[in-house]
Amino acid sequence: MTPVVFAFPGNEAMADALSARLSAERGACTVRRFPDDESYVRVETAVSGRDAILVCTLDRPDGRIAQLLLLASAARESGALRVGLVAPYLAYMRQDARFTPGECVSAKVFAQWIELHFDWLVTVDPHLHRFAHLAELYSIPARAAHSAPVIAAWLRENVPAPVLVGPDQESAQWVEEVASLAGVPSIVLAKRRRGDRDVEVSVPEPAKLAGRTPVLVDDIVSTARTMIAAVRHLREAGLAPPVCIAVHAVFAGDALHALHAAGAGRVVSCDTIPHPTNAIALEGVLCASVAGLLGNGASPAIDGKAAV
Amino acid sequence: MTPVVFAFPGNEAMADALSARLSAERGACTVRRFPDDESYVRVETAVSGRDAILVCTLDRPDGRIAQLLLLASAARESGALRVGLVAPYLAYMRQDARFTPGECVSAKVFAQWIELHFDWLVTVDPHLHRFAHLAELYSIPARAAHSAPVIAAWLRENVPAPVLVGPDQESAQWVEEVASLAGVPSIVLAKRRRGDRDVEVSVPEPAKLAGRTPVLVDDIVSTARTMIAAVRHLREAGLAPPVCIAVHAVFAGDALHALHAAGAGRVVSCDTIPHPTNAIALEGVLCASVAGLLGNGASPAIDGKAAV
Repeated sequence: MTPVVFAFPGNEAMADALSARLSAERGACTVRRFPDDESYVRVETAVSGRDAILVCTLDRPDGRIAQLLLLASAARESGALRVGLVAPYLAYMRQDARFTPGECVSAKVFAQWIELHFDWLVTVDPHLHRFAHLAELYSIPARAAHSAPVIAAWLRENVPAPVLVGPDQESAQWVEEVASLAGVPSIVLAKRRRGDRDVEVSVPEPAKLAGRTPVLVDDIVSTARTMIAAVRHLREAGLAPPVCIAVHAVFAGDALHALHAAGAGRVVSCDTIPHPTNAIALEGVLCASVAGLLGNGASPAIDGKAAV
Repeated sequence: MTPVVFAFPGNEAMADALSARLSAERGACTVRRFPDDESYVRVETAVSGRDAILVCTLDRPDGRIAQLLLLASAARESGALRVGLVAPYLAYMRQDARFTPGECVSAKVFAQWIELHFDWLVTVDPHLHRFAHLAELYSIPARAAHSAPVIAAWLRENVPAPVLVGPDQESAQWVEEVASLAGVPSIVLAKRRRGDRDVEVSVPEPAKLAGRTPVLVDDIVSTARTMIAAVRHLREAGLAPPVCIAVHAVFAGDALHALHAAGAGRVVSCDTIPHPTNAIALEGVLCASVAGLLGNGASPAIDGKAAV
């Protein structure tokens, strides 16, 4: 039977795109708050015996998670065959270890909540660090669609003579992958974090940047302090205003404004989180991952390299 | 080993009172949000091999549940023997059935989240309607402390010649119990709900009210629309400004102001939710329920009638 795609409020555009590409029905649902700040949810499209796909990106997760899990329950209780989650941005990936006694590994706890209510998960480039694969965190089938080929294609079409710049070592592996896919050089800056909002950066190999447009790429841009420090150092080194690319445009508070103030050039992002900077559409790679999980038309590329 | 009582932010007073009565240690914890609206939690007091008791009332639950469950996980991962929850107000008790196809029974879903992270639960007078007992909703040991004897004692000391008035049929059973415990008469109004904020009320047996101070009692006062309608009808019937008692002072938005504007007299509440109207302290009955669950000194009254 035809799958049904539901949009958590704010995710309508991605749900429209996915349902069109999947030839699925675009379902209707209600998600609202009572005056006492409890929530009411309802799936309005019949899901009995069908795959229900909920699209909900998970930036600012604390205010969304209760409603999302209730909506998944509503689909489940209405007889859905499977209830899947498309979360282009996946939350709580940073606390992947107990750094100090008394903490919890919130990445694992968050995964428990998702597993309790969903049968599968598709996301884009999760921030994997100590866990090498989503499967170490999630016991349900979980796939990571890959933004690198799409970013590389965007670069080739939009930035002449680019040099990719990773703002820190964590970004190295996949900045180098984007550079390789786009056929351009890359460097990685050295970063030292001194607090939530305080980061120090140094620029190696300045000669490699001469005569090229620097393109900063990072997976999550939240406070943007890492990228701001990188922009400052590139500008101080006499380089052109760098193009800044975020896979996940969290942009907390005044981060975007501060990034421009620091001397950034064009700031663009993938559309994993709806944001004015969105310029790189990932519906294609997301759709391929979802199709692979639904079992209709997975490509070998999706089942292989991209299926982390 | 001595139990440790942790206060979720905003619950310090109740945590202080409970730890003193239980001769438990008052633990320290951190609960804060990162700039991207994810949360960081940490238990700072050693809990290994000890009972950890988290005090967190659950009004406005959607904004609290993620942090609360993370904090419970932190206690668990730190080796707590058992992790218990004292939630003087328990959320999501109203959607206890699927009233329309496509809904979920959120009372059950919320219970699943609590069960996933806690070993036991103590609350005060949960809003039980279609489920007769907490045990039908919660598979972990769950006890309901009972406010009626404490409200009855407060009434005897503070209101001369009262007549208890239940604003609707749902309040009947325990309004009658408070009246019986206080040795005063009671009536129950007839209520018809026309939406979240729109309620119609009628006053039977006006003669029973003559010469007495009407005392409205309800378990949850959220928008206060039910109580406001009751106040208006009592005032239109020529009665004195009614004393209004809420067990759970949710008071959404301008509800308290509107209740006074409608002609209420003194408005008081039990301290299940910290609120300026708090006047009736329930630490004693809560402590007895917790002690019963910890297995040190449960009274027969707690194990019997009050242990719903």
